[in-house]
Amino acid sequence: MEKKIPYKIYLKEEEIPSQWYNVRADMKNKPAPLLNPGTLQPMTQDELSHVFCEELCRQELDNDTRWFDIPQEIRDFYKMYRPSPLVRAYFLEKALGTPAKIYYKFEGNNTSGSHKLNSAIAQAYYAKKQGLKGVTTETGAGQWGTALSMACAYFGLDCKVFMVKCSYEQKPFRREVMRTYGASVTPSPSMSTAVGRKLLEEFPETTGSLGCAISEAVESAVSTPGYRYVLGSVLNQVLLHQTVIGLETKAALDKYGIKPDIIIGCAGGGSNLGGLVSPFVGEMLRGEAAYRIIAVEPASCPSFTRGRFAYDFADTGMICPLAKMYTLGSQFIPSASHAGGLRFHGMSTILSQLYADGLMEARAVEQRSVFEAAELFARVEGTLPAPESSHAIRAAIDEALKCKETGEEKTIVFGLTGTGYFDLYAYQQFNDGTMGDVIPSDGQIAASLEKLPKVEE
Amino acid sequence: MEKKIPYKIYLKEEEIPSQWYNVRADMKNKPAPLLNPGTLQPMTQDELSHVFCEELCRQELDNDTRWFDIPQEIRDFYKMYRPSPLVRAYFLEKALGTPAKIYYKFEGNNTSGSHKLNSAIAQAYYAKKQGLKGVTTETGAGQWGTALSMACAYFGLDCKVFMVKCSYEQKPFRREVMRTYGASVTPSPSMSTAVGRKLLEEFPETTGSLGCAISEAVESAVSTPGYRYVLGSVLNQVLLHQTVIGLETKAALDKYGIKPDIIIGCAGGGSNLGGLVSPFVGEMLRGEAAYRIIAVEPASCPSFTRGRFAYDFADTGMICPLAKMYTLGSQFIPSASHAGGLRFHGMSTILSQLYADGLMEARAVEQRSVFEAAELFARVEGTLPAPESSHAIRAAIDEALKCKETGEEKTIVFGLTGTGYFDLYAYQQFNDGTMGDVIPSDGQIAASLEKLPKVEE
Repeated sequence: MEKKIPYKIYLKEEEIPSQWYNVRADMKNKPAPLLNPGTLQPMTQDELSHVFCEELCRQELDNDTRWFDIPQEIRDFYKMYRPSPLVRAYFLEKALGTPAKIYYKFEGNNTSGSHKLNSAIAQAYYAKKQGLKGVTTETGAGQWGTALSMACAYFGLDCKVFMVKCSYEQKPFRREVMRTYGASVTPSPSMSTAVGRKLLEEFPETTGSLGCAISEAVESAVSTPGYRYVLGSVLNQVLLHQTVIGLETKAALDKYGIKPDIIIGCAGGGSNLGGLVSPFVGEMLRGEAAYRIIAVEPASCPSFTRGRFAYDFADTGMICPLAKMYTLGSQFIPSASHAGGLRFHGMSTILSQLYADGLMEARAVEQRSVFEAAELFARVEGTLPAPESSHAIRAAIDEALKCKETGEEKTIVFGLTGTGYFDLYAYQQFNDGTMGDVIPSDGQIAASLEKLPKVEE
Repeated sequence: MEKKIPYKIYLKEEEIPSQWYNVRADMKNKPAPLLNPGTLQPMTQDELSHVFCEELCRQELDNDTRWFDIPQEIRDFYKMYRPSPLVRAYFLEKALGTPAKIYYKFEGNNTSGSHKLNSAIAQAYYAKKQGLKGVTTETGAGQWGTALSMACAYFGLDCKVFMVKCSYEQKPFRREVMRTYGASVTPSPSMSTAVGRKLLEEFPETTGSLGCAISEAVESAVSTPGYRYVLGSVLNQVLLHQTVIGLETKAALDKYGIKPDIIIGCAGGGSNLGGLVSPFVGEMLRGEAAYRIIAVEPASCPSFTRGRFAYDFADTGMICPLAKMYTLGSQFIPSASHAGGLRFHGMSTILSQLYADGLMEARAVEQRSVFEAAELFARVEGTLPAPESSHAIRAAIDEALKCKETGEEKTIVFGLTGTGYFDLYAYQQFNDGTMGDVIPSDGQIAASLEKLPKVEE
């Protein structure tokens, strides 16, 4: 007889993973190395460690070690909000009338409201261990800044957040959460860095950009003794930390003998998707199993589906190392969508390589259809999802509806990365019927791709 | 050897209570009946059922039935977010350096953000079962309105929320959550009721009050065929539904053989506190155990600690039945504090009787000290608490610090009713150092108590 699956599968505290899984160790085609934009040579540990914490640089560059021990101090912190539940979406299945079995791994049950905390606490730990006084970072939507503030408060580290000025003004409550956790939050561009002053002199009315905030945070870190810069997505180290999501998901599924057919995640820089799918992709790479993996991105910022696999800058300021990734070009400005966490022109190098090798699918979805899925999900599953996470919901619903047509009882697992409590302006536009979606033209993307740096491989 | 207590104790899905516990059945001194304000005679089932759903009226009036079966449809909904975790506050204990063992029952892990959903789903269920088209209610801070919207969306009931106008304008995001769940939200006073039109004619600039919103919701319910009025606190039926909190808490403690010394809850109308403590008070009433029970109220609205135990109106409009309770007088206007859920002049009749009989203690705490406790809690336990809930945190910390002085290893349990994502304006005032607290003068309270209705008992 089949074991009854509860609405929520909770692992035990002692089942919190004790190691992170490095999928690069199982990849035959390794992700391309980061390049020094001056020399076009691979970045070294020494070069990286001027900007990033030493241990994190090691994690960034290590393509071979399969498992990294999670330090006890980090596992202790994880107990505050992990293991996170794997939820069987019985209510959603019923509402859709689908024979598909839908599960979601919910990472929103912590005050930062998202999975970002999994890597924030690791990065803060290594900064503390290195004897640093503090860290700097940028934040757009605010989820990463909030998570880092919580992590720094826990280890007694100073935390300087450069927040894109328009977000700073539009999301004062995000700012207040960070302040409550003791972080200093500076609207970017600011007068506290050279790059900020230069920009303000040129464009006094600018409301900032993520690219500029990154540049300010990096400048602030390298020019302040005892500080380093930290980043919440894209990097290999971040995907590594986020594998707690996938490892817990797999452990929970295994406990009930469930084998997923389709695994779905939203994709911005790729940290959540990479963390969720890594253990499953590892099985595929080792020839132990086969899954359909689907990356879901916004139609307004379609790096996988309409970008090019090439070396590019990770920042608009073009001061960061070059990464080989699916990119729309570092000068591509996505339209103002409500999924701030997915408005990045590039993609994790690991996921880019996996996609190029045919191990993943990708699809782009439009904003209004995303919010339709979000609203249905909120009503039947009782959780108001973040706009970013709702991209995955959209694709999961679409797959479940296909099953309804064909009668197939597929098992679908998706990542619900966070809650939408700070995104209600977006819901208001949806409720008012004033939400639009701007899809870039072929010409716009081609023009941006023309400006890619010339790198011979 | 002592069993190791995990950070979070989760009951299993099948351990969700199957019955609500009616503490009135074990009370020797029953709570005084509601009186018809016209005749001063006890309200009958028939009189009440013009305003409230029939089954809920029966629950309201039944002082004898000890256990009420929870209908399967409600238990199914509970699975969406229950059982809620009982958390061992290891991080807080360490930060305080106390030998006390602190636990909290966390009711904030659902999109309404509070325990209110426990009763909202029950009230919506009985409305649906009675064949009603919809329900009306009022909301101030917005937690109750959000919970009711979620519950009505689940059962396909129409939901009309009258939201105090100043809240409607200051908390547009609360309004959007309700709209996302399909509720109509009307700023009160409104032109859609006679009482609203009258008030607006007299005071065109008014920003409304909870008392007026209640009157509008009641008028709207009784004048619209197929509608009834529902309320989120104070009433016996609400305390009954909220006993799922206390029953789960007790089951989780029993599982590890833990016997609390002190049980703490914040008290506004009393629904959370009553729900949490009922099973424990039941043991006290039956002579099976002894606990210290502490109700914590804001110093700005101190019904227990400075009010009078007397018959009074539950609403400022003086159209509701009279209830015998600790009250500051229905004309008492508490100063504008940030704990909107605790700004009620009266108190549950059940809790009032228990307090009068010496089964509970009460204390009043000041707003700034509440937010100091909230900030510490957020930093070490990782959950940003609602201002209301933080009253209980304040008292729990104070008791734990007493243990630090005396060296006693007391076990303290408190109710963490909800999260503060929609209360960041309050946190901002605290972070900016501009938060004050207005404590009513003896003269103000005496003047208000002079206007109590004359009821001979």
